[in-house]
Amino acid sequence: MIQKLIDGIQKTGAPIVVGLDPMLSYIPEHITKKAYEQYGETLKGAGEAIWQFNKGIVDAVCDLVPAVKPQIAMYEQFGIEGLLAFEKTVRYCKEKGLVVIGDIKRGDIGSTSEAYAVGHLGRVQVGSKEYYGFDEDFATVNPYLGSDGVKPFINVCKKEKKGLFILVKTSNPSSGEFQDRLVDGRPLYEIVGEQVAKWGEELMGDSYSYIGAVVGATYPEMGKALRKIMPKSYILVPGYGAQGGKGADLVHFFNEDGLGAIVNSSRGIIAAYKQEKYAAFGSEHYADASRAAVLDMKEDIASALAARG
Amino acid sequence: MIQKLIDGIQKTGAPIVVGLDPMLSYIPEHITKKAYEQYGETLKGAGEAIWQFNKGIVDAVCDLVPAVKPQIAMYEQFGIEGLLAFEKTVRYCKEKGLVVIGDIKRGDIGSTSEAYAVGHLGRVQVGSKEYYGFDEDFATVNPYLGSDGVKPFINVCKKEKKGLFILVKTSNPSSGEFQDRLVDGRPLYEIVGEQVAKWGEELMGDSYSYIGAVVGATYPEMGKALRKIMPKSYILVPGYGAQGGKGADLVHFFNEDGLGAIVNSSRGIIAAYKQEKYAAFGSEHYADASRAAVLDMKEDIASALAARG
Repeated sequence: MIQKLIDGIQKTGAPIVVGLDPMLSYIPEHITKKAYEQYGETLKGAGEAIWQFNKGIVDAVCDLVPAVKPQIAMYEQFGIEGLLAFEKTVRYCKEKGLVVIGDIKRGDIGSTSEAYAVGHLGRVQVGSKEYYGFDEDFATVNPYLGSDGVKPFINVCKKEKKGLFILVKTSNPSSGEFQDRLVDGRPLYEIVGEQVAKWGEELMGDSYSYIGAVVGATYPEMGKALRKIMPKSYILVPGYGAQGGKGADLVHFFNEDGLGAIVNSSRGIIAAYKQEKYAAFGSEHYADASRAAVLDMKEDIASALAARG
Repeated sequence: MIQKLIDGIQKTGAPIVVGLDPMLSYIPEHITKKAYEQYGETLKGAGEAIWQFNKGIVDAVCDLVPAVKPQIAMYEQFGIEGLLAFEKTVRYCKEKGLVVIGDIKRGDIGSTSEAYAVGHLGRVQVGSKEYYGFDEDFATVNPYLGSDGVKPFINVCKKEKKGLFILVKTSNPSSGEFQDRLVDGRPLYEIVGEQVAKWGEELMGDSYSYIGAVVGATYPEMGKALRKIMPKSYILVPGYGAQGGKGADLVHFFNEDGLGAIVNSSRGIIAAYKQEKYAAFGSEHYADASRAAVLDMKEDIASALAARG
């Protein structure tokens, strides 16, 4: 799956993942209105609105990017109906040839981590039958519980040829509260990064590992250090755009080969029509605005990479 | 909700939470057989088996314990059908007067954490209406992302009078890999524990905070230290029984008032009929075996607390 991701990045020239994190406030009124007419102002109505909104964006950008990253929390908040929209979105994106990174940030101990891994990346056994659950291609994982929480995910990845992005340094302002604490003079995120590199050795693709890392665009200097610590790990970089990360900040996350990083933008793409810059599209054409935002982001990253020489 | 939990502990005399972490292999054949006859060896069949298994246990132990802790991973692995069984279980346990601790170990940044908090503890807005999602009473939270990942959970708890248990020191063998790293000469889990105490001050009940901590029974000495660092935080203690924690280890997690800790047992209770000690019950009477295991656990903890004088 890591090779499919890399092939997609090379084919599109866009190391970009579109974060499908729909909030109801992002969804144009013509979509919510129709969904509520059909199902009322209910959880089912919300699920339908989210699904229709996503479908529009996916149709508009699927030829431009290699991957999407649905944030499961944004679906889970609507309970079962929201999770049905998540499931539908994952399936549709895969049909469109996109790599799907489930942003689930799960992490637990032993058999419990195994259950999450099976439910999101693998197959669960029921009697003599096996079933895929949510069936994403990659999942994000929280490492706080240590190796025996992460290993079950790695084992399922080995079996299914799927991958992980493990939280190392997150993009939020208070990520440093624990992640930056100095351990023997070095920040904890570096220790976690070293461990990610080690875990990654167990499951190598051609040039990169199936086990990647999450490092926020908002911390470019740390990205630079982590890039060296985990040379074979793909870095999923959130925090571009709405959270403040800029193209020039991103270059540190890429290797010399121009690979090694994939940058996420959620709000900046899916709610682009709400920005002044793309307002001319109007809410009816929100998906075209998203397409324009992807093209601008691609250009921004390409210029920054070109400028580093 | 913390007061409801404490009242329940005092009424039952059992600082015990039953972990509803059903694996299909724990479920007696008469239950899976019936479920598969009805729905086939499908995800729906698995969901039905889990739900019937849980219901039997809840009916058998609900007068003995104040709380249950369904581990959502064990349901999520069966996709939507598993999560329907989770939802049904949460609702049923609440009807039976039990406090429900959703063992979800979620944690993300800002608006994403808010979505998880809303989905599990609060109400989500759809148009002019509001809906509860999974509606647990407490949730477990992963702190690796820092304050801005935890605060949205605290805000929802304030509004809904619900609570959290934040991972501080987990019960698994490799929990020390990151959690025990020394920061300025002190282990990270103590730093996290201090932060939990601080967060807890924001949301106090009568004598304990709504914001508690998870500390594994398998690390009693660390429990002793953390008990002092977070005097007003309830400690949820996993790792008793199957994972190796013993009654005598647990005393360190309790305050002088005999309160301050609630001990989880999952496999040791829900799959008790599989142990030699309770084998005489037979798989048909698995729930009676669970009841006997709860009574033994209650006795074990009470003796240990009495022995400390």
